[in-house]
Amino acid sequence: MNTLGNIFRISIYGESHGEGVGVLIDGIPAGIALNVDDFLEDLSKRKPGAKGTTKRIESDYPHILSGIYNGYTTGAPMNIFFKNENKNSRVYMDFQSHPRPGHADFTATEKYKGFNDLRGGGHFSGRLTLGLVAGGVLGRKILGDVRVKAKLITLGTMEVGDNLEEINDYLQEISLLGDSLGGIIQCEVENLPIGLGEPFFDSIESKLAHGLFSVPGLKGVEFGAGFLGTTLKGSEYNDNFINPKGTTDTNNNGGINGGISNGNKIVFRVAIKPTASIFMEQKTFNFKEEKLMPLKIEGRHDVAFVLRVPVVIEAVTNIVLADLLLQNINR
Amino acid sequence: MNTLGNIFRISIYGESHGEGVGVLIDGIPAGIALNVDDFLEDLSKRKPGAKGTTKRIESDYPHILSGIYNGYTTGAPMNIFFKNENKNSRVYMDFQSHPRPGHADFTATEKYKGFNDLRGGGHFSGRLTLGLVAGGVLGRKILGDVRVKAKLITLGTMEVGDNLEEINDYLQEISLLGDSLGGIIQCEVENLPIGLGEPFFDSIESKLAHGLFSVPGLKGVEFGAGFLGTTLKGSEYNDNFINPKGTTDTNNNGGINGGISNGNKIVFRVAIKPTASIFMEQKTFNFKEEKLMPLKIEGRHDVAFVLRVPVVIEAVTNIVLADLLLQNINR
Amino acid sequence: MNTLGNIFRISIYGESHGEGVGVLIDGIPAGIALNVDDFLEDLSKRKPGAKGTTKRIESDYPHILSGIYNGYTTGAPMNIFFKNENKNSRVYMDFQSHPRPGHADFTATEKYKGFNDLRGGGHFSGRLTLGLVAGGVLGRKILGDVRVKAKLITLGTMEVGDNLEEINDYLQEISLLGDSLGGIIQCEVENLPIGLGEPFFDSIESKLAHGLFSVPGLKGVEFGAGFLGTTLKGSEYNDNFINPKGTTDTNNNGGINGGISNGNKIVFRVAIKPTASIFMEQKTFNFKEEKLMPLKIEGRHDVAFVLRVPVVIEAVTNIVLADLLLQNINR
Amino acid sequence: MNTLGNIFRISIYGESHGEGVGVLIDGIPAGIALNVDDFLEDLSKRKPGAKGTTKRIESDYPHILSGIYNGYTTGAPMNIFFKNENKNSRVYMDFQSHPRPGHADFTATEKYKGFNDLRGGGHFSGRLTLGLVAGGVLGRKILGDVRVKAKLITLGTMEVGDNLEEINDYLQEISLLGDSLGGIIQCEVENLPIGLGEPFFDSIESKLAHGLFSVPGLKGVEFGAGFLGTTLKGSEYNDNFINPKGTTDTNNNGGINGGISNGNKIVFRVAIKPTASIFMEQKTFNFKEEKLMPLKIEGRHDVAFVLRVPVVIEAVTNIVLADLLLQNINR
Repeated sequence: MNTLGNIFRISIYGESHGEGVGVLIDGIPAGIALNVDDFLEDLSKRKPGAKGTTKRIESDYPHILSGIYNGYTTGAPMNIFFKNENKNSRVYMDFQSHPRPGHADFTATEKYKGFNDLRGGGHFSGRLTLGLVAGGVLGRKILGDVRVKAKLITLGTMEVGDNLEEINDYLQEISLLGDSLGGIIQCEVENLPIGLGEPFFDSIESKLAHGLFSVPGLKGVEFGAGFLGTTLKGSEYNDNFINPKGTTDTNNNGGINGGISNGNKIVFRVAIKPTASIFMEQKTFNFKEEKLMPLKIEGRHDVAFVLRVPVVIEAVTNIVLADLLLQNINR
Repeated sequence: MNTLGNIFRISIYGESHGEGVGVLIDGIPAGIALNVDDFLEDLSKRKPGAKGTTKRIESDYPHILSGIYNGYTTGAPMNIFFKNENKNSRVYMDFQSHPRPGHADFTATEKYKGFNDLRGGGHFSGRLTLGLVAGGVLGRKILGDVRVKAKLITLGTMEVGDNLEEINDYLQEISLLGDSLGGIIQCEVENLPIGLGEPFFDSIESKLAHGLFSVPGLKGVEFGAGFLGTTLKGSEYNDNFINPKGTTDTNNNGGINGGISNGNKIVFRVAIKPTASIFMEQKTFNFKEEKLMPLKIEGRHDVAFVLRVPVVIEAVTNIVLADLLLQNINR
Repeated sequence: MNTLGNIFRISIYGESHGEGVGVLIDGIPAGIALNVDDFLEDLSKRKPGAKGTTKRIESDYPHILSGIYNGYTTGAPMNIFFKNENKNSRVYMDFQSHPRPGHADFTATEKYKGFNDLRGGGHFSGRLTLGLVAGGVLGRKILGDVRVKAKLITLGTMEVGDNLEEINDYLQEISLLGDSLGGIIQCEVENLPIGLGEPFFDSIESKLAHGLFSVPGLKGVEFGAGFLGTTLKGSEYNDNFINPKGTTDTNNNGGINGGISNGNKIVFRVAIKPTASIFMEQKTFNFKEEKLMPLKIEGRHDVAFVLRVPVVIEAVTNIVLADLLLQNINR
Repeated sequence: MNTLGNIFRISIYGESHGEGVGVLIDGIPAGIALNVDDFLEDLSKRKPGAKGTTKRIESDYPHILSGIYNGYTTGAPMNIFFKNENKNSRVYMDFQSHPRPGHADFTATEKYKGFNDLRGGGHFSGRLTLGLVAGGVLGRKILGDVRVKAKLITLGTMEVGDNLEEINDYLQEISLLGDSLGGIIQCEVENLPIGLGEPFFDSIESKLAHGLFSVPGLKGVEFGAGFLGTTLKGSEYNDNFINPKGTTDTNNNGGINGGISNGNKIVFRVAIKPTASIFMEQKTFNFKEEKLMPLKIEGRHDVAFVLRVPVVIEAVTNIVLADLLLQNINR
């Protein structure tokens, strides 16, 4: 289903080339000060415009249809709608019979027996993450002092440091090839109270991973030392407590023991695959012609949509942690 | 909460040194042939005994308390209970004030204000995975021809190939050090029908990751090419379709597009951290004495509990996929 | 939370005097033919206009914002929005300190600490049932041959038969008094397959009652012989089977045994209280003035909103039964 | 599914003539003092023994298999198991082909294709309410000062006042006929804080009714003035506030406005049908013989199981209200 969360709940809807996309948010405590500006900064971080991102420009203005009154949340569900303005559907028409590699064209057509809206990826479009970003704003307000910060740490084969010029050259090079890039994003959470999360199925890792893997193109999640941590011995991996607050000397567990926050920084990384839409010609099966045929994708797309994903990762993190906070009966 | 799934639902309960542990399974279709032997093989794979595993020996006999009649499932919930027989609680007594690094001692004590049962890890014990394994047996029966197979591919810094002697030497060496190891497990799913999974929050990745991260000590999940896949260019990463069945030439997406199975093998890997309990002395904070103090863990524990985890990974996979299959309204 | 259902899910949102109200529907199978006309007939039955109903006239046009493509459902969530056009908020302003008896003014103000939108009842308005009616249209399509029919059987103290003139005179008389009426609605379901519903918490009675009691002003639900049935002896109450289809001679159980449909007509009745808003002066506590004070409610309201409720009861029934049908793993 | 609740969750399992019945309770806050005696009083109220109740005597001892340590709840799920000791299955064997009127024999056999355990009603047995009663004990502890009290107000055609002799004569008379009785139970809740419950689907009425209709044989629920209230005019029905605490002069709304508690007594009534098992011969269809045939039910059963239901109604009420309390984010 298209809903995330138990108490603080996010339901996303919409299609890339339909009327618009949006989010229905339920379980918002009453009395949170909120206005449209609260959304605009986060939404702008998700926007294209920078090098390496798509040329589809949308105003992405959040129309709050319910749940707000006199500048405060009311406790009722909040529906936030984003109109689609700059659609260009013509170029997406053949993908039912000649599905794009790496996209949901084939699987969605099979699943929905061809009734799915394929234009621009339809309901599978990255545009749906607008709703996640909007939901994340509410999540952050619920979390109070908790600070969530995500940043790109690798782009393709390159580590992302301070040398932004190098990054731009890399993007330019790949763009000229008609190819695309992925990358790795690291996210850190500070000030999370000790004791959040539940054993097993509602562990912080389980709940966060559930939310994170809903981000299109995300193919891996690791906490703390992650996959590399499996090469450490227990004596190296274990994080020793060093003071009464529970601070640990190392943080290989990523701030989580037994699924529960231990008061240290929550640290995790996510793998984002390269943009599936590339201008370069691909050879893939045409299910109508019943043979391998060249596929040339026109239109507008990101060289590396991973550049726009950090704010989405922050949003999902804020949403999931807010939900865990509100349902924590032992708080 | 301690429940996984929407239609096919698994609720685990119990403590390491209490009466026992178990699982309540709901949403089982009626008429599935089932007997105790169906459980024994999987349960034995989870058992200790081999080199590198704990010396705590339990019979792990599954007492089916409900939901079965004349050798068939009835459609009613099935409660499967495993008695604790071989308990040795004496050695766990101080961990509330002197919590073991890498364990839930500290977080659980904080969360539950000291009312948690800390003996043997209590409700956080790996022993709770008995219920997952039992649930997985039902999941597999629901899935029919689907084949789920997990195997250890790395142990600590070593690739696990055919040379089991080398592995044994490695375990022996670490054991003598009083230290421990983790590893990486790869899981593959064959014969999964096309079209399973939902966009976004009920994607195969989201649902599987949710279940997988509930396995104690699991710190990373990646699908297909995973983290390494972020270094590929889109033209290298994209999996081209090559025939009418939707077979792809590569499988960097791990058999999943847009969260939905594409008919190719589902492939994922999980990172399991080294056993947190080590015999080697550790220096960690004593919250009663209010100073760093040496901690010496007695008792019985695995050098590398990862050796016993593949069957648990298979179980979780079977549980999650069975749930997705039963709730697939477009089937 | 504002969501009903497990697989087929209805989430309602909006306020009486905000931007509008609506419904987000998830779990719709792909490929159902659907257009706006499918909604208009049901929505018109809920409309005021007839004697005894409010003078607030709204177009109630269903704007389908997502989930439909080329006249068919796509399998993606459907958001249906109804704009508020004919608002008149001025008259509702004092109800926070001088709450209307029988309304949610007092409880909502307490619960939401005064941040709730009180205009026209805000999120508690009967106008929210527009979303239920829209959701019911989808539910009915999912149910296929199942026929749900609700009708008013008593209005205040009068049985509702064929003499509509008498009813009109009654309404006229109550209207002149500035007073209001309630009534009882009976609903029957035909062609429901045998075997729908689950024991205990997902029994047809439990699920229907859950949905029905969400209808504003609904204060009672009874199945089959209901409360009067408690005066029968077992030998009178029991419904004997009379043929191989499971037809029963009587239907005191209302077509349900053990929570599961038995193939006979589902029959239930609901009690709808008299409209809480009356023109007659009422004496009730003013929490600002801290004394009992006369309250005179202006504005537009139904003499007997129960007249507009049968279509809402049908809608809820269609929604709940569609959900039970889709999650019935033994079908 | 066999689970009730969102945060405080009750899952019941078991069969009448299998190993036993029980309940898995999740979402219990840590640190609640609890011992077996806390259960025994409520369980004894549900027991047979008095005139008009079955002769099947069970010890009904609650085996707490998990979730308790040193006399306090731990925050982990609690499994409470009741062994079946006094089974007598022989007499239930033919009910698959010759189903008892008013029971689930026919519907369960159809639904589960004959794989259901029919002995003693199997999973549909009233014996499953043992788990509800046990869960209610925890619910009551969570609720603190809230007081829930249910009592029988009518038995068959007789009002239940103080004259217990009259009741006994009535039961004796019906018993001699080999017939059975139902009745109406009224439940009142005191000290419930203002502001509990949510609009629409999580209204107190919706949540309570959901739980209540899971009680076997329960066919009606009404709040406050209920069905009779539909004959009142609005001016008579409306409950006027009379003081700063929100006390109302009448309580036709049963202490609930807009689905939310208003601080007055919660009042509701439930209709319990006459015991379906009667000794009197019934004529009902035999699906194997394919003709109407006399059915004679042997064994042990209540003349009026309604006599044992008040404690179950209290339990369900405690469970549902505890869940609403724990998930009330605006508390």
